[in-house]
Amino acid sequence: MPATPTTNRRFLLARRPDGTPVPEDFAFVEEAIPTPPAGGIVVRNCYASLDPAQRGWMDDAPSYMPPIPLGDPVRATTVGVVAASNSPDFQVGDWVMGLNGLEDYSVMEAGGFTMKVDPTLADSPSRFLSAMGAVGLTAYFGLADVAKPQPGETLIVSAAAGAVGSAVGQIGKIMGARVIGIAGGAEKCRRLINDYGFDVAIDYKGKSVEQLAAEIRQAAPGGADVIFENVGGDVFDAELLNLAKHARIVLCGLISEYNSPTKIGIRNLWQVLAQQATIHGYLIMDYVPRFGEGSAVMAEWMAQGKLRIDEDLQVGLENAFPAFMRLFSGANTGKLVLKIADGL
Amino acid sequence: MPATPTTNRRFLLARRPDGTPVPEDFAFVEEAIPTPPAGGIVVRNCYASLDPAQRGWMDDAPSYMPPIPLGDPVRATTVGVVAASNSPDFQVGDWVMGLNGLEDYSVMEAGGFTMKVDPTLADSPSRFLSAMGAVGLTAYFGLADVAKPQPGETLIVSAAAGAVGSAVGQIGKIMGARVIGIAGGAEKCRRLINDYGFDVAIDYKGKSVEQLAAEIRQAAPGGADVIFENVGGDVFDAELLNLAKHARIVLCGLISEYNSPTKIGIRNLWQVLAQQATIHGYLIMDYVPRFGEGSAVMAEWMAQGKLRIDEDLQVGLENAFPAFMRLFSGANTGKLVLKIADGL
Repeated sequence: MPATPTTNRRFLLARRPDGTPVPEDFAFVEEAIPTPPAGGIVVRNCYASLDPAQRGWMDDAPSYMPPIPLGDPVRATTVGVVAASNSPDFQVGDWVMGLNGLEDYSVMEAGGFTMKVDPTLADSPSRFLSAMGAVGLTAYFGLADVAKPQPGETLIVSAAAGAVGSAVGQIGKIMGARVIGIAGGAEKCRRLINDYGFDVAIDYKGKSVEQLAAEIRQAAPGGADVIFENVGGDVFDAELLNLAKHARIVLCGLISEYNSPTKIGIRNLWQVLAQQATIHGYLIMDYVPRFGEGSAVMAEWMAQGKLRIDEDLQVGLENAFPAFMRLFSGANTGKLVLKIADGL
Repeated sequence: MPATPTTNRRFLLARRPDGTPVPEDFAFVEEAIPTPPAGGIVVRNCYASLDPAQRGWMDDAPSYMPPIPLGDPVRATTVGVVAASNSPDFQVGDWVMGLNGLEDYSVMEAGGFTMKVDPTLADSPSRFLSAMGAVGLTAYFGLADVAKPQPGETLIVSAAAGAVGSAVGQIGKIMGARVIGIAGGAEKCRRLINDYGFDVAIDYKGKSVEQLAAEIRQAAPGGADVIFENVGGDVFDAELLNLAKHARIVLCGLISEYNSPTKIGIRNLWQVLAQQATIHGYLIMDYVPRFGEGSAVMAEWMAQGKLRIDEDLQVGLENAFPAFMRLFSGANTGKLVLKIADGL
C-alpha cells in the first residue's frame, strides 16, 4: 500500500459477469492521478465498502441505478480524504463519504453526491461504511421505520451473520423482539448466539425448503411477525410458510440470486395473500437525509455496549477481486471493507 | 328447480382435486332437510357465489381458512331465506347472507356468522354476492383503503374483465386514475373499453413475459403506480417489469396457480426491491365490519350510472360443477352466481 502513489490504480469492470464473477470480468490498470474539474474535487479513497448490491450493478438489467458502464471502475461507497478541490464546499484534508469507485482516486463532478464525515466520531473511518454508514443504517431504518417490531413479537432475519443481518438481530433485541437468525454453517450459527445475542440460530445448509420450514416452525410456532429478508430463494420460501397474520416483510436483499443467470423469485407468494402480509421493497437511499439521526442512535448503542458491529477488513486495492468474492463464498464475517490507504 | 323441495340436495367435495377439478372430485347427494340446532337456524339457499377462492379451499394446504373437509358441501357464500329458526336473532323469512355451502339448505350453528340483508336495497338478492357483497367490496376497499390511487396515477388491473377486476377498473376511473386492464382475448378486451370504460386493454394471450412487459411499457411508459393483482404467474411477472418507484401492489388473487399442482409465485421479485414497491396481501375478511359503509358507496355509484357490475347467472344446483368451471375456462362474463331457488 504505497503512502503517496504516483499513479491512480483502478479496478475496472471489463465485461458483464455471466453468473458468478471471474477474474477475467475485471481489469486492473494504472492511470494518471486525476485533477479536479471545475467545481469538483478529487478524493483519495481510504476505505471502500464491498456489498452484494455491487453484483447487481454489474448486470445490464433494469434496477434502481444504472449499470456500471464497461471500462469504468467498479462503483463503491468509499470513505476518503479530499486530495484536491475546485469546490468551495470542500477543503483538501476533509474526510468525506460518497459513491465513488474501487480506485485510489475518484473524481466528484460539481453537484455530485459526497458528504463530509467527522472522523472523531468513530474509532476508525471505516465505521462510516459499517455501523454508521449505509449498512448499519439499513438495519436501523428497516426496523425502526418500516417493520416496527413490537416487544414480544417474533423477528426472523436471513443472512443473519452478515453485516446487515447481525445488526438487524441486535437492534431487534434492543426493541424487545424475539429474534431468530438463519445463517449458513455451524460456526456462523454459534456467532449469532454467542456474539450477537440471537435467541435462536438455524443453519439452512443442506436442507430442503420443507425441512427448513419445519425447523422454523419449531422455533416460531406462532409464525413470524417480522421478516428481514436478505437472501431470497429457498430460504425466503421456507420463511413464507411461517408467516403470522399481518406479517411485515422488509425485502432488503436477494443475495441467493445475484449470481444466478435466471431470476428465482419466490414460489410461496400465496402465503403473503393468505396471511395478509406485506412485502416492503426497501432501499436505504431514501433515508440518506436522515443518516445523521440514525448514526447518532447507532453510536450511542455501541457506546452502551448494546451493539457489536464487526468488520471484515481486507487490505489492498490489488486484492479487490478476492475480497469481493468473500461475499458470495460465505467467508466474510462482518461488514466487508477494503482498506486502500490510511489517508493523504 | 323445485319450489318446495322435500330433500336437501348437496354438492359435496368427495376428494381433493389434483390440479384442475374433474367431476369425480365431487358427489351430488340428497339428504333429509336439516332441522335447526339449539340457538341456530336453517337457511334456504337462493343464490351462491362461485369464486376462484373456493378452489384454494379444496386443497389441504395452509391458508387463511381450514380446507373444506372431505364429504362436506363445497363452502360458498350464499344469500337465502331463513327456513327455520331456533335463534332469537332470526325470523323465518328473513333474508340473510353467510358462509354456507353449495346445497339447498345450510345449518348455521348458534354463534355462527350470518348477517341479515335488506332485499329492498337491491334489484336482486344476488347483488349481495356481487356489487354489494364480498366481490364488489373487495374492489372498493382494495382501492379506497389499501392502494389509494391518486388522480393521474396509472393503475393496472389483471383479470380485468372478471368480477373483481371490472369493478376495480371502474372505481379506479371514478378516483381519477388512468386504468389499464389485462384480460384474455379480444372480446374481453373490447368489453373493458366499451362496457367498463378502461383507458387501455391488453390481451395477454399467446404472449411471453417479455412481449407482455413490452406492451405494458408502451401503454404505461412511466410504470404502474398501482397494481391490482388477481392472476399471478407470467402476467404478474410482466407487470413487475413495469413498476413506478414506490408502486403499491394489492395482491388479491392468484388464479393462474389455483389449479397448478406446483406453486408458481413470481420470478421478478427483484423489481419490488429495486422500485421500493410494496405488496399488500389482501383479503376482504378484515373489512366485513365495514360492509355497510362500502355497499352504500357502491349502491350510490350504481344509481348514478358510474358503475356497472355484470352478473353471470347460472341456474340450478345440479349445474354446480360446470358453473364453477366457468371461472377457469375464462367463459364467465361478470360475477359468477349460481341460482338455487327463488325463496321459500
